[in-house]
Amino acid sequence: MNNNAKLTLVGAGPGDPDLITVKGIKAIADADVILYDDLASKALLSYAKPKVEKIYVGKRVGKHSHTQQTINELIVHFAQENGHVVRLKGGDPFIFGRGYEELEFARQFDIPCEIVPGISSAHAVPALQQIPMTSRGFSQSYWVVTATTKEGGLTPDIALAAQSTATIVILMGTKKLHEICNTFRHYGKQDTPVVIIQNGTLENEKMVIGNISNIEFEASKHNISSPAVIVVGEVVKLGKAYIEEFKHIQAV
Amino acid sequence: MNNNAKLTLVGAGPGDPDLITVKGIKAIADADVILYDDLASKALLSYAKPKVEKIYVGKRVGKHSHTQQTINELIVHFAQENGHVVRLKGGDPFIFGRGYEELEFARQFDIPCEIVPGISSAHAVPALQQIPMTSRGFSQSYWVVTATTKEGGLTPDIALAAQSTATIVILMGTKKLHEICNTFRHYGKQDTPVVIIQNGTLENEKMVIGNISNIEFEASKHNISSPAVIVVGEVVKLGKAYIEEFKHIQAV
Repeated sequence: MNNNAKLTLVGAGPGDPDLITVKGIKAIADADVILYDDLASKALLSYAKPKVEKIYVGKRVGKHSHTQQTINELIVHFAQENGHVVRLKGGDPFIFGRGYEELEFARQFDIPCEIVPGISSAHAVPALQQIPMTSRGFSQSYWVVTATTKEGGLTPDIALAAQSTATIVILMGTKKLHEICNTFRHYGKQDTPVVIIQNGTLENEKMVIGNISNIEFEASKHNISSPAVIVVGEVVKLGKAYIEEFKHIQAV
Repeated sequence: MNNNAKLTLVGAGPGDPDLITVKGIKAIADADVILYDDLASKALLSYAKPKVEKIYVGKRVGKHSHTQQTINELIVHFAQENGHVVRLKGGDPFIFGRGYEELEFARQFDIPCEIVPGISSAHAVPALQQIPMTSRGFSQSYWVVTATTKEGGLTPDIALAAQSTATIVILMGTKKLHEICNTFRHYGKQDTPVVIIQNGTLENEKMVIGNISNIEFEASKHNISSPAVIVVGEVVKLGKAYIEEFKHIQAV
């Protein structure tokens, strides 16, 4: 085994290359091999040493170019052969990133592992629209849920979330919007504000605002699709766009 | 009003100065005045231009050196007088940071506002102990709650959280540990693993691991106090320390 064998899981942030941490850049600059995916901005690869091997292992929706098992094996192979492997992942590696599976596999081969947390789109994409996760008088907690479970169904946590006072952030949920809205309606939340932000932090960012009653219509009218962040909660009202839309309605 | 009047709320991350984003550093480097608090690492101030005014507005537990209203007014005063104010806050400005209150106040004076998200200790401190927020087969959501509400009581969201399959992260909870454990016990979760990490990412980091039944004893034995992150959930078992402790028990 290479004496420098090591895995660093680096969170690349939500898309804007300036939303990576200094620690993440230092890891990239030290890497012997970089395995990166779709969401990790390619601009970040420019921090690497010259001639470092950079391998795309992204998984586009519906097109699994590499299975998770293959990625795990590539990590171990390159760590043993080349030394320091940086696995550059969109968002944060430990928030729906399957990063733990990669770390666990590498541990089995006694490869030292390090984590560099990243900015998750879950809170950053709403933040850039000036929507806070928590704010006194509006929400004192936030819950981040993926709509799509391993088994393909809607996670039962959505039903509990709909009963709480938490700000609910739903990732990978655009295809399940109807079921999500039904769950919130079931708990009398038809008036709760909702925002859906597609391609957050990128140039082609697109947003629709409404409430549980009308967001399906709005999303369909504006052709909202994945990747998108759905936020359900009173804090949506605090965002810049909601306030501007409200002003507009008042003016009419 | 100064033509460059502007407020940028910058998340400084959980403590390690390398856990700020590139965007955050660029904002600090552009600032005319910086208002910073306890948790924002002082090392970050070195990115500022020479002679930039740097004002400490931290609030230590029990010692409110500046009220929130004073901070709001300082922001507006310096934006109007000096131009670009960077408000450097520990963690993320929109996660229990009261950042929204600062933004809202500045908006009233037509001061343009920008947000630079930060790495929150909520997920980063556990991540550095190799504890993921989510992992297939363990948890498909995570819920971040502050134990201490505006009114001083335990938030009722803790009771809902205790019924869910989410990873629960509790901030500002060490003084309410007994009530928190009682709530989880009430829902039959006495065996659910718990970790408490004090001063996460800093040199004086301290950690105790256990479950709902014994964590109060462990925390008291090791004099755990704030600031600390409490994580309750099966994912705690995936962390490096838990695995090592388990190995140790097997060896005995």
